[in-house]
This record gives sequence, C-alpha cells and structure tokens, in this order.
Amino acid sequence: MDRLEKLRAKMRDTGTGLVALGPGPHVDWLLGFHPHPDERPCLLLVGPEKEAFLMPALNAEGSRERTDIAFHEWADADGPVDALNAALAATDADRARSVAIDETMRADFALLLLDNLPNARRSFTEDTIGALRMRKDDTEYRHLKENALINDRAMQAGFAALKPGVTELEVAAAIRAHFASEGAQPQFTIVGSGPNGAFPHHATGERKLEVGDAIVIDIGGRKDGFPSDMTRMAALGHAPEGYAEVHAIVEAAVQAGLAAAKPGVEARTIDAAARDLITEAGYGEYFVHRTGHGLGIEVHEPPYITATSETLLDEGMVFSIEPGIYLPGRFGLRLEEIVILRADGPEIFSELPRALHIADG
Amino acid sequence: MDRLEKLRAKMRDTGTGLVALGPGPHVDWLLGFHPHPDERPCLLLVGPEKEAFLMPALNAEGSRERTDIAFHEWADADGPVDALNAALAATDADRARSVAIDETMRADFALLLLDNLPNARRSFTEDTIGALRMRKDDTEYRHLKENALINDRAMQAGFAALKPGVTELEVAAAIRAHFASEGAQPQFTIVGSGPNGAFPHHATGERKLEVGDAIVIDIGGRKDGFPSDMTRMAALGHAPEGYAEVHAIVEAAVQAGLAAAKPGVEARTIDAAARDLITEAGYGEYFVHRTGHGLGIEVHEPPYITATSETLLDEGMVFSIEPGIYLPGRFGLRLEEIVILRADGPEIFSELPRALHIADG
Repeated sequence: MDRLEKLRAKMRDTGTGLVALGPGPHVDWLLGFHPHPDERPCLLLVGPEKEAFLMPALNAEGSRERTDIAFHEWADADGPVDALNAALAATDADRARSVAIDETMRADFALLLLDNLPNARRSFTEDTIGALRMRKDDTEYRHLKENALINDRAMQAGFAALKPGVTELEVAAAIRAHFASEGAQPQFTIVGSGPNGAFPHHATGERKLEVGDAIVIDIGGRKDGFPSDMTRMAALGHAPEGYAEVHAIVEAAVQAGLAAAKPGVEARTIDAAARDLITEAGYGEYFVHRTGHGLGIEVHEPPYITATSETLLDEGMVFSIEPGIYLPGRFGLRLEEIVILRADGPEIFSELPRALHIADG
Repeated sequence: MDRLEKLRAKMRDTGTGLVALGPGPHVDWLLGFHPHPDERPCLLLVGPEKEAFLMPALNAEGSRERTDIAFHEWADADGPVDALNAALAATDADRARSVAIDETMRADFALLLLDNLPNARRSFTEDTIGALRMRKDDTEYRHLKENALINDRAMQAGFAALKPGVTELEVAAAIRAHFASEGAQPQFTIVGSGPNGAFPHHATGERKLEVGDAIVIDIGGRKDGFPSDMTRMAALGHAPEGYAEVHAIVEAAVQAGLAAAKPGVEARTIDAAARDLITEAGYGEYFVHRTGHGLGIEVHEPPYITATSETLLDEGMVFSIEPGIYLPGRFGLRLEEIVILRADGPEIFSELPRALHIADG
C-alpha cells in the first residue's frame, strides 16, 4: 500500500475530509519531494478519493517532473483564490466537514485555506500523516543507522579537538568538518563547556576550554534526506567536583527510559521512568525538558516523549531518550540515544558508549 | 527613534492593538536577532506600550543575552497556553481588537494565538512592520551594495565556467565556490540552459551546455545577514536564432521599469511600464511573472512589483526589476536589477552590464 493510500485509510479512521499540506516535510514523506517553498501559496490537498496541488505557475516546472498529481496553477497577476477553490472542488474537499492542517505551513497559507472552508472543523496532522510518519520502514531505518554511525565518528572528531584554550566554536568546527568529510551536512553543533553546559540549547561560543570542564556535545548532521542527533559528555583532564555522581544518575535515567520503552505503552511512561529516577535522586528540578522527541525526516517530529503524552508507542517508532541534569553556574549533563522500538524493546542506533570521555588536559 | 518605537507609531496609525511575530525575519529586523526556532511556540508580542516574549524555557538562554524584553517562559511539561495568556495580559494585548500576525510564522503558532484572542480582527503585517521594513537605512544599503558586488563577481565566475559539455550543475558549483571564497553563503543558483531557460524557476540540473544555447543565470548569496539577487544572460559561442530581438525587448522593458520608478508612484505602475512594452512587442503572453519583489533581510519581501499592487513607492525602498520572456522549447530570457529608490529615481546596485555575455564555444 503506498503512502497516499495509507493516508486515506487514516483519514477514514479519523473522519478527516481533507488533509492540507504545505511544501515541507509532510509532502517529502508522502511524495519523495516537495515543491519550491516561497511566499506564493502552495498546498497539496488530499481529499477522500482525489488529490490536487494548488501551485504557483512560476514554480510548477520542477514539481511537474516529479508527480502526476493535478496542478491548479495560479499566476502572480491573478492571485491564488480562484485556483484554490477549483482545487478544493476537484478533490471534493469543498464539502469537507473536517480538515487536518500541516502545523508547519506558513500562517498565511493556513488562513487562506481556512477562510475558504468556513464550515470545516480544523485539526493538525498528529492523527493522520503524523501518526503514519512515526512508524519507520526499512529504508528509513537504514538511512538513520548510517547517519547515526557518521555521528559517532563526528563525535570522536569533537573529542579529539578538546584541548585547553580551544574555544567551543573551534570544537564545533572540527565536528562540522567531519560531517562534511562523510558527505553529511552539519545541522547543529552544541558544544557547552563548563557552566555553559547548564543551558540545554546553549549557543556555542567563544568560551575557551579549561582543565576540569565538563563539556556537553549535542550534534547532528543530514545525509540523503535524514538527520542524526546524539549527545555525549566529555571532560578536560578531569571531571569537575560532584560530576561522577550526577553522571551515574543520568545514565540510570537513560537505562530506566530504555527499559520502559515497549510497544503498547504511552509515551509519558518513558518520560516518567527517566524523570522519577532523577527526582528520587534529588535532582528533579534540574531536569528541565521533556525526555525525548521523534526523529525521521525532521530532527524533531512525533512521537514526543513528554510528561503528558498519551501517544501509544509501537514497533518501528524512532525517538530520542535524553534525560539531563543542569546545575546553574556549575555544569550540565545530558546523555542522548536515538532508538527504534522493536517488539522486545528499543534498539539503539549509536555504537558509541555513553561513558564520560576524558580528554588530555 | 528606534525600530520598536517606529512600529508603535505605525500601530497607532493603523489602529493595530497587537503585532505578533514568530522567530524569523521580522524579529531579526526589529531586534537584530531571533530566538531559536523549533516546534515550541515562541512569539514576540508588541502591544500599545509594552512588549513581551512567549518563550520556551529550553530556548531562553541564547535570547536572554540579547534583549531585556520580558520573557513569559513555559516548560515542556506545562505547555504554552498559560504563559501565552500571561504575556497577552502583560502587554495589554488581551484587550486588543485587532492583531497583525507575522504571515511567515508556523500555522500552529498563529492558530494558538488566534484561539486565545477570539474577538480580535486579524490582519498580516504589510501595513505595520512590513511597511517599515520596505524603507532601508544606510547600514542596510551598505550591506546590500557589498553583496551585490560579490554577486557581480560570482556571475563572472559563472561566465568563466561556460564551456560545451559542462553541465548546469557544474556552472552552479563554480558560482557557489565564488560566493564561498568571499565569505558569502550561496543561497540559490539557477542556471537554465537552452530550452530549460524557459522555466523561470528552473531546477538546475544535468543538462550539458551546447553551442548556440542561451543561458539564464539567476543567483544570490548571503553575507552579514543580507542577500543578493541578480539575473544575467549568456550564450555559448553564439546566441540562438531570434535571440537578439527578444533581448532588446527585455532590455527596453527593464529601462521602462527603471524610468517609471519614482517616489510616490504605485508599484503596479512599474509592472505596467515593463509589461506594456513587452505586450506591445507581441510577447505579453510569455512574460508570466510579476516584474519584481523587495529585497532586504529576505530575498523576497515587500514591496512586490505586481500588476495589482497599489503600494506607494518611496525613497529608500529596495526591489527588483526583472522582466522576462519565456519561449517554450526554445529559450528563456530574463534581466534582473536590484535598485534602491532615490528622490530622483532608482539607483542600481550591480555594476555589471546587462548585455549578453558570449562565452567561447
């Protein structure tokens, strides 16, 4: 069954009369490409039996070679409204009583659509295309595995760059160069040294590494349309005072999250397993973020592993387990694995140990 | 007067009670940076007298160093609604009867906001921050000028790469390498050779150049937060049959557009000047797009030079004039200048002639 047919089955299950997607990751997943994104409204409309594109005439060419789906083109001088209404009629979506909107599309695209469907109940895509995208197939698995192993080697390149007096940005540059050397595009390189590690999304900067720093390294690259994402910890010369105890707690939280990850459990069960362990160790207030997020075409996508998510986990789902403890003014500590859920539990993509890496100081 | 004060003056003029912006170009223009964008709702709310950020706690750090604006932070476990309502109350925006929404923000951010402001009339930002961004100051002018001159040299690097048997992608690679050599990030490199030139947004590909090809080269790079954008024409060995006549018509259309560009005229006046000239020459149906677009932080931004735009042009506005004629199966032809409007008319940024470049074939 192709992905469009799978989407229609989900639409029937959920009573969704129209799925409307902008030129972005949802369309990538569905069709293997997306049209050129710019300020000109462009939508893929999937109705109960027919689908159509609202397509700026100027941008039609590249997409025309990739798909047989009907285009309702509009020219700059005419604007998109007539073409949109023709596309809605052609997909029987003009009568839809419920529409699922791509949450990532531009606000002006979404409001243009909603203004032309005044009687439709709206939702986002979490129970239609979002639910489908959570389950990865073998091809997606292979790409994610290859990328994870590149990330392992990029992490080791980062470890090799750790020296007293080197800046965070210089370490990040070594990591980026490694990604590029394997044909991957570096996507993010968080290097949080010493007290900077206590900011989970630290903006890597000019701070120079010092002996006794703990260093959070959270990096990702993109190759063949798929990303990677992993966090490991290093120290320069030796870890700071009190580090070993906190590392052991975060490691135990990762293991608790891994142990809780089984098909059929709710996502919040994993969050609770990791969080309860950290809370019981006395550090609950310092674990300031969710335990994880899905990974596929996007670095962050469903399922989100949060304290409240009732999403039922299933075989083939890919997500991170990444508890952390952030001690303001001292250091931060996070360990992140990406896993795919198998019948008997999670398979970790990375082959790099989570132990603290101690660099010569 | 700083930019926030200018925005408030526009809000008073237009009766706008709230301007709501996502982490993107509008915030860049207003504050000189934008918070980390991800799926977590993040909004800058500008009320009549006070402003505040709705801010995911995880992403607060990098932004905290850049601004004194109040943050209403929310944690993953709590979700954004309470923090949003607190931020709306703190900016007196909870009583706003009209809200201007950043048209580029994610649909889920916009609908979250609108659901919490059920009584507000909504608009986009074209008459508030959009109107302000159209007028460039001296610093913006200098960045755009520097980038335009880099683009001139990148175009010449592209010309130097034109040889029989070379692919469009190889020409694009030479252009990208030149941008990088001057510290600019290549943003787009359209190389449309022979019949491919008839697609205005051609996806540069594996076609090999042949003697007698006309080649559309439309390129841009980004440096210091500002882009460039220019289109020139080349031919390999010699131009195809009928080319010279069409080039002369497009050149005359550029000149007509330049001559029409004066402070106080409507944007559509420029479009009409270029379009009427092409129509009178018998090629109207082959000029399939608007005449131009603004350029600033974004490659495409207001003012748009379309057949219907009543936007009044003024000194300091920067936009393209780029008429084209696209002959299916034969060749395409576009000439694009970026100009800044001065009291006595447009000043062209590029210093590269618009004449056809003939490469050895």
